[in-house]
Amino acid sequence: MAYMKIIRSKDNSTYKLAVKLLKRKFRDDTGMYLLEGVKPVLDAIDNGQRIEYIFIEDSDSDRGIPGFPESMVIGLDKKLFAEISDTNTSQGMIAMVQQQPSGDEQLDKLLEGEGKLMVLDRIQDPGNMGTIIRTAEAAGYGGVLLMKGCVDPYSPKVVRAAAGSLFRIPVVQKVSEEKLFAGAKASGRTMFVTALEDAIDYSEGQYDNKSIIVIGNEGQGVSENFKNAADFKIKIPMAGAIESLNAAVAAGILMYQSQKSN
Amino acid sequence: MAYMKIIRSKDNSTYKLAVKLLKRKFRDDTGMYLLEGVKPVLDAIDNGQRIEYIFIEDSDSDRGIPGFPESMVIGLDKKLFAEISDTNTSQGMIAMVQQQPSGDEQLDKLLEGEGKLMVLDRIQDPGNMGTIIRTAEAAGYGGVLLMKGCVDPYSPKVVRAAAGSLFRIPVVQKVSEEKLFAGAKASGRTMFVTALEDAIDYSEGQYDNKSIIVIGNEGQGVSENFKNAADFKIKIPMAGAIESLNAAVAAGILMYQSQKSN
Repeated sequence: MAYMKIIRSKDNSTYKLAVKLLKRKFRDDTGMYLLEGVKPVLDAIDNGQRIEYIFIEDSDSDRGIPGFPESMVIGLDKKLFAEISDTNTSQGMIAMVQQQPSGDEQLDKLLEGEGKLMVLDRIQDPGNMGTIIRTAEAAGYGGVLLMKGCVDPYSPKVVRAAAGSLFRIPVVQKVSEEKLFAGAKASGRTMFVTALEDAIDYSEGQYDNKSIIVIGNEGQGVSENFKNAADFKIKIPMAGAIESLNAAVAAGILMYQSQKSN
Repeated sequence: MAYMKIIRSKDNSTYKLAVKLLKRKFRDDTGMYLLEGVKPVLDAIDNGQRIEYIFIEDSDSDRGIPGFPESMVIGLDKKLFAEISDTNTSQGMIAMVQQQPSGDEQLDKLLEGEGKLMVLDRIQDPGNMGTIIRTAEAAGYGGVLLMKGCVDPYSPKVVRAAAGSLFRIPVVQKVSEEKLFAGAKASGRTMFVTALEDAIDYSEGQYDNKSIIVIGNEGQGVSENFKNAADFKIKIPMAGAIESLNAAVAAGILMYQSQKSN
């Protein structure tokens, strides 16, 4: 068994496509992204993700991918491989994968459906975003909505921190405040917005399957518009001289608490 | 006003000391570490931390440090400064700071005192450790115990993620299982150990001010010894295909839950 194809030139069109996917703009335009590592790629296949190609770092020993057509497995010259790899944890495997659908239709479906929703307002740290997506799946949430101004959920660090949850929990990105506020109202949802002032203790919130919880930017918190649109403002009490919790920790505490008062 | 001293040679003994502090072994031996950034350094001064020197990236404009003797502020050549800086967020300021006391005496004091304790068993990710220390302060915990095999709490990434909590909450490192288990028993503490099997739901735990909660290694969880020594094994329920939560998120959920059943 041999690779159908080995790419050794950086002018190869498929390779050039992969290189472009290092940039958010191109990921946004094409709806594709790069996924690194053996376990993540096999996990993506298991979860029915649409994979265009799997790049294998060139070596003499051929490597088959269970459940994946060999014609789409491409050997890559070591140097070329390194250029599209974000980490040294790729284990010689990077897949080009389709992003999950994201748009008004998906937004409406999530808002109108059952299941709590986590909303992220301008979250900047990729590790935080990935961890929150992972925790949302674990907490049994219906989906995660990313407002405009968030980091790209398909950037390598987010994908890594999400640990496969991006294949399984709905994530809608580039949501506008207008659409969210109108849709939440129309679908009878209750919006709990984290805030430090005029807020009730988070454990006093009455959460149900139509609840939305909003976590804000790491430095600034949620926008004024969110505070104004909130049905309830909630806060997590903090002892000591702490000004704020890490966003992913706060999201975890709130999501798990919200599942208790159903 | 001018600096008392400007270092331009990498053979300067004070500078050589700073360079050595990039290595854990030397931090352990000397009980010192490097703290980067204007806000963290001022925060350390405010919190009464013992600071040996403050290095300022060399520039023409002199810079005073409020509340700090000028004789201990040292200008550093740009290149030399860059070599002891872990990030591009140092903002031209790095302090050489004494670690908080850590040893048997501190361990016993924490175990015998009041206040819940968070125990980390071989946590490897610096961001996780720093975030957990920060959350422990916010949750009103009495201290954090780091078992042997944990990452160094005074490595730059931990210090950064802890966001000043290292100045305020007791952190004892290199704790041995033998000492912890014996001390916990002697001081009448109850140990809640996270585990996936034979565990009760975390929200069913009866936590009080003598409770100890143990979080394990990111990949492997807690050691067998911890499972055997546990008074209670607890787990956080997970939906979907999630195998584990991020360690810092799990710690946050558990610490905040434990403060509710007092």
